[in-house]
Amino acid sequence: MSHSFDQALQLAWQGEDLFTGLTHPAWANMVGPYGGISAACALQAVIQHPLSLGEPVALTINYAAGLADGPYQLKARPARTNRSTQHWVLEWLQNIDGQAQVMMTATALTAVRRGTWRAQDLPLPEVPPPEAVPPVLMVGQVDWVNRYEMRVLRGHLPEPMDGREQDSLMQMWLRDAEHRPVDLPALAAMTDVFYPRVWLRRAHRVPAGTVSLTIYFHAGGQELAEQGQEPLLAQARSHDFRHGFFDQTSQLWSRRGLLLATAHQIVYYKE
Amino acid sequence: MSHSFDQALQLAWQGEDLFTGLTHPAWANMVGPYGGISAACALQAVIQHPLSLGEPVALTINYAAGLADGPYQLKARPARTNRSTQHWVLEWLQNIDGQAQVMMTATALTAVRRGTWRAQDLPLPEVPPPEAVPPVLMVGQVDWVNRYEMRVLRGHLPEPMDGREQDSLMQMWLRDAEHRPVDLPALAAMTDVFYPRVWLRRAHRVPAGTVSLTIYFHAGGQELAEQGQEPLLAQARSHDFRHGFFDQTSQLWSRRGLLLATAHQIVYYKE
Repeated sequence: MSHSFDQALQLAWQGEDLFTGLTHPAWANMVGPYGGISAACALQAVIQHPLSLGEPVALTINYAAGLADGPYQLKARPARTNRSTQHWVLEWLQNIDGQAQVMMTATALTAVRRGTWRAQDLPLPEVPPPEAVPPVLMVGQVDWVNRYEMRVLRGHLPEPMDGREQDSLMQMWLRDAEHRPVDLPALAAMTDVFYPRVWLRRAHRVPAGTVSLTIYFHAGGQELAEQGQEPLLAQARSHDFRHGFFDQTSQLWSRRGLLLATAHQIVYYKE
Repeated sequence: MSHSFDQALQLAWQGEDLFTGLTHPAWANMVGPYGGISAACALQAVIQHPLSLGEPVALTINYAAGLADGPYQLKARPARTNRSTQHWVLEWLQNIDGQAQVMMTATALTAVRRGTWRAQDLPLPEVPPPEAVPPVLMVGQVDWVNRYEMRVLRGHLPEPMDGREQDSLMQMWLRDAEHRPVDLPALAAMTDVFYPRVWLRRAHRVPAGTVSLTIYFHAGGQELAEQGQEPLLAQARSHDFRHGFFDQTSQLWSRRGLLLATAHQIVYYKE
C-alpha cells in the first residue's frame, strides 16, 4: 500500500460508528485537504463500516471548514437500512483550541443494485484521444494537483488573467499520476478535480472554494474495474454566478464512453 | 393562513433543535407526503430555527422511507456556524411499531449573501407564453398534483404507454394552483414536481421514487418576492438509467428569465 491515495484513505475503526484518520500532505490544498480526498474518505468509511449494505449510489459532502493538518474523527452512522438501500449520515470532528468542532458533514446512499432496463443519454463528447494531448505541467501549485495527470482539451487556466469573459466549459483526459486503477473512492475524488469555474469564466482569479458537493455513481465497482488504468474524460461547466456562489456540473466517462459519475457542487466566491 | 402549503409547513418549536409537525392530506403522494413538501419543511425548520444565519443556498434531502400519516419529529441542528455560512444537519423521526425510526435525513447550507460579479449562462428556453398553453387536467392522480397549475409545453405523460422510447426532456409553466406567491420553501417544493423521467423516456410505467434530492438556490428571498405570482418555467431531463437508478436535473426560471433554482436527484426504479 505505497500509493498516497491509499495512505490518505487509511481509516481506523474504533467501534460505535467511529473511525479515526490522518490528513496526508500529498493531498493538501490551500486550506485543509483537497475536497476530493475527503469525499473519497467518506465513501471509504461507508464501505468499511461493518453494517455496510451494497455499493455507493449517491454522496453529498459539505465542506464546513478546512480540516487542520493532523488526526481527525469521522463518524459514519447508518441512519436507516431498508431491504436494498441504506442511508448514511457522516460527520468529521477535530479538536480545535480544546473544543470538538464539526469540520465537514455528509450523507450517503448505498444500494444493492440490480440489472434493469438501461439507457445512457449523455454520450462521450467527440474529442481527440489522450495520446494526442500533452499532460499539463503543474509547478508551484498546491500539492494535490500533482497526484493527477491532466491532458486538457479545452478550458485551460486563462493566461494572461486579463478579465476577458470566457465560457466556463472544461474538458480533459484525467488519470491518476501513478496509474492507480480507478475504484469508487478514486472516482469520487476525481469529480472535484476542476479549478474554480469562476476563474475561467471571468479570466480573473478570486478567492473561491467548494462548499457542498453531490456525486451520483452511475457505474458500480465491477464496471470500474473493467476500465483499468485508462484515462477518463472529465468535463465541467457552470450555469450561474450570483451573490457569492456559483454552481458546477461535471461528468466523468470511461475512455470507451460509459458515463461513470455525474457531480454537482456549489462554490463560494468573493467579489 | 388558509393555504394548504402554509398549513403543511406549520412546525412547532420544542427547543433543543427539535420541531414537531404533522403530515397534510392535501400533499399526499403514493406513499408518504410529496417529496417537495418535505424539502420545503426542511427549509422552513432551518429558517425558523432561533440560531438561523442568512438564507438557504443548498439543500440535500434523502428520502429514506415514506413518512406515515400523522405527527413527526424534525431535528434541525446547526452543525457549524462560520462568519457568513452555516451548515445544517436534519433528521425526521417517527414512532413506528413503538420504535423511533429515521424516515428522512438532510443537510443544508445557509449564507449571508453579498453582491458580487454575476453571470447567468443558462437562459430561459424559447417557449410560448403561459397564456398560450392550457393547464393539464389531473383527475384521479395523487393528491399533491392538484396543488399546482401545470401548463405542459413538452414531455406530457405518454399516451398510450406503448413502450416507444422517448427523450426525457419536460418543460412546463408551473404555478401554485391558488396563486400563492413563491418564497424559498415554495421554490424548493417546486423542484420535485416532475413525474418520473423513466416513464417518459420509456413510455412505460414502472415503480419509481426519488431517493435523494439536491437543490441550489440561485435566487434570494427578495428576488423571489419580485416574481410575485407569475408562473415559473420548469424544465427537467435525465442522463443515465442503469442498475435501478436514474438521475434527473431540473431548472426553474422566472417568467422574466432569471434562473431561480437548479436541482438534481437520483431516483430508484424497478425492472
